[in-house]
Amino acid sequence: MVITIADLTGVAVFAASGATAAVTKRLDLFGVCVIGALTALGGGMIRDIVIGSTPPLFFADWRYPVTAMTVAVIVFWLHPAVNRMRISMLVLDAAGLALFTVIGTHKALDYGVPTLGACFIGVISGVGGGILRDVLTHEIPIVLQRDFYALASLGGAVIVVLGQHLDDDTGRMVIALGAAMSVFTVRLIALKYRWHAPKP
Amino acid sequence: MVITIADLTGVAVFAASGATAAVTKRLDLFGVCVIGALTALGGGMIRDIVIGSTPPLFFADWRYPVTAMTVAVIVFWLHPAVNRMRISMLVLDAAGLALFTVIGTHKALDYGVPTLGACFIGVISGVGGGILRDVLTHEIPIVLQRDFYALASLGGAVIVVLGQHLDDDTGRMVIALGAAMSVFTVRLIALKYRWHAPKP
Amino acid sequence: MVITIADLTGVAVFAASGATAAVTKRLDLFGVCVIGALTALGGGMIRDIVIGSTPPLFFADWRYPVTAMTVAVIVFWLHPAVNRMRISMLVLDAAGLALFTVIGTHKALDYGVPTLGACFIGVISGVGGGILRDVLTHEIPIVLQRDFYALASLGGAVIVVLGQHLDDDTGRMVIALGAAMSVFTVRLIALKYRWHAPKP
Repeated sequence: MVITIADLTGVAVFAASGATAAVTKRLDLFGVCVIGALTALGGGMIRDIVIGSTPPLFFADWRYPVTAMTVAVIVFWLHPAVNRMRISMLVLDAAGLALFTVIGTHKALDYGVPTLGACFIGVISGVGGGILRDVLTHEIPIVLQRDFYALASLGGAVIVVLGQHLDDDTGRMVIALGAAMSVFTVRLIALKYRWHAPKP
Repeated sequence: MVITIADLTGVAVFAASGATAAVTKRLDLFGVCVIGALTALGGGMIRDIVIGSTPPLFFADWRYPVTAMTVAVIVFWLHPAVNRMRISMLVLDAAGLALFTVIGTHKALDYGVPTLGACFIGVISGVGGGILRDVLTHEIPIVLQRDFYALASLGGAVIVVLGQHLDDDTGRMVIALGAAMSVFTVRLIALKYRWHAPKP
Repeated sequence: MVITIADLTGVAVFAASGATAAVTKRLDLFGVCVIGALTALGGGMIRDIVIGSTPPLFFADWRYPVTAMTVAVIVFWLHPAVNRMRISMLVLDAAGLALFTVIGTHKALDYGVPTLGACFIGVISGVGGGILRDVLTHEIPIVLQRDFYALASLGGAVIVVLGQHLDDDTGRMVIALGAAMSVFTVRLIALKYRWHAPKP
């Protein structure tokens, strides 16, 4: 239950980010909904297809697309207000990234994916939606161009994988929370101090 | 049998639309074939991967790729004539959209996908190929930019889903035909009267 | 064992080609790694998803991503030297194309995909990574724009499929080697004499 609420919060935040990008490109209402939904649900969709869990959650649980599209419609009508909320958006986006990374890594481990593969699937869950958004709106994916977005996600995935052999549930939950906090914190610090990965 | 013939007609029409776009971008014969095939078969390929029906029909039944590629080669040699047929192309394309939406929604329901998810899979079956075509030829997908293309498809998918609990086969067939007619008609009316979804 | 070494060689070569493209686009270290990995492993990833072999090898065997990313990091630091090796890169790339085509076609046949579908899956295994690279770095896929790249791959896939009914293992191995040599040779001859598929 806690997980579902947190998960849907992440969906809502990523849907808002995708819808804002689509509005900026002057797409129509339908396009804004599609880009919003793909940004919110794309990472999980790729994750589920890759681990063989079909149909992906996006299609199996109506609350996911409904949340994403409702948010996209709201952004469509209110986008000047959404733009003014830019800072809170970035904070919420970091929370979504943290959450999706941790849930994605766990799900991959549950499906028997080996350690390193599970880390990558966690990162894909976190950043995949944003990549779809950028490809469809005709941009080089921002995640490929700058800063610690995906590296923050990778760090969290590694923490989850390292903690997977703990026996008790409480311990695993603490590790999961720690991993999520780590992604969130690294992402925000990287934003504040404009950390960048090396450039050629 | 009726379904297969109708299905292959849809494949042919979408292949022609993709090949025409590729010729306009001055791709070579191979590129025209690939884009033609992906436009015709891409929606169904994504559909089959998402519902876990692997390998997709594209790879399992040779008539699909052969139809798509034959049409692409014909368009490559005859494209000035194809351009002159633009109106009939739009009509045929609307028919293909109608057909793929209805078949896709049915297939998703058959694979146990819940109602709302089945609608989305129907729409993806209808519009997915065109999105692949636009991404590969370096355009923002047209379906995201304007008019009632995908909304027409969504309407048809909803009709199929609403009719799924009918007991008798005749009833379901009538519903399917009605859904297809509805997509076709809405799409053509939207074209004629230049309906648009709201713009920001 | 021979196959694994050859396979990892192909991964390394394609990773270098992807990383070089990413450096040219001035992506940061992370972006170079992602593009390098997707170029090297993307074709096989699509292949495995399409034939229903999940999770794809990329996620199930750590040597694949580690090889790809190590090469990407090396290219990132040494890219001026890599640029000077352009001719050897093209030769190695042709070898990678040959290898991935043959392995992909075999794997599809092993999973029960019919003949023509197996050919297409072989070609996708060979060229898919390069298409992902070009989409993500914002180019029209080069494979759609010119020369005999994919046709060379298709020729090799056809040879593998034709030889699949041989009874003895030695015969199949000889066919596989012949198919790989054919892709390699056609690709290099096409480069040297600037063969092109017809243009509209």
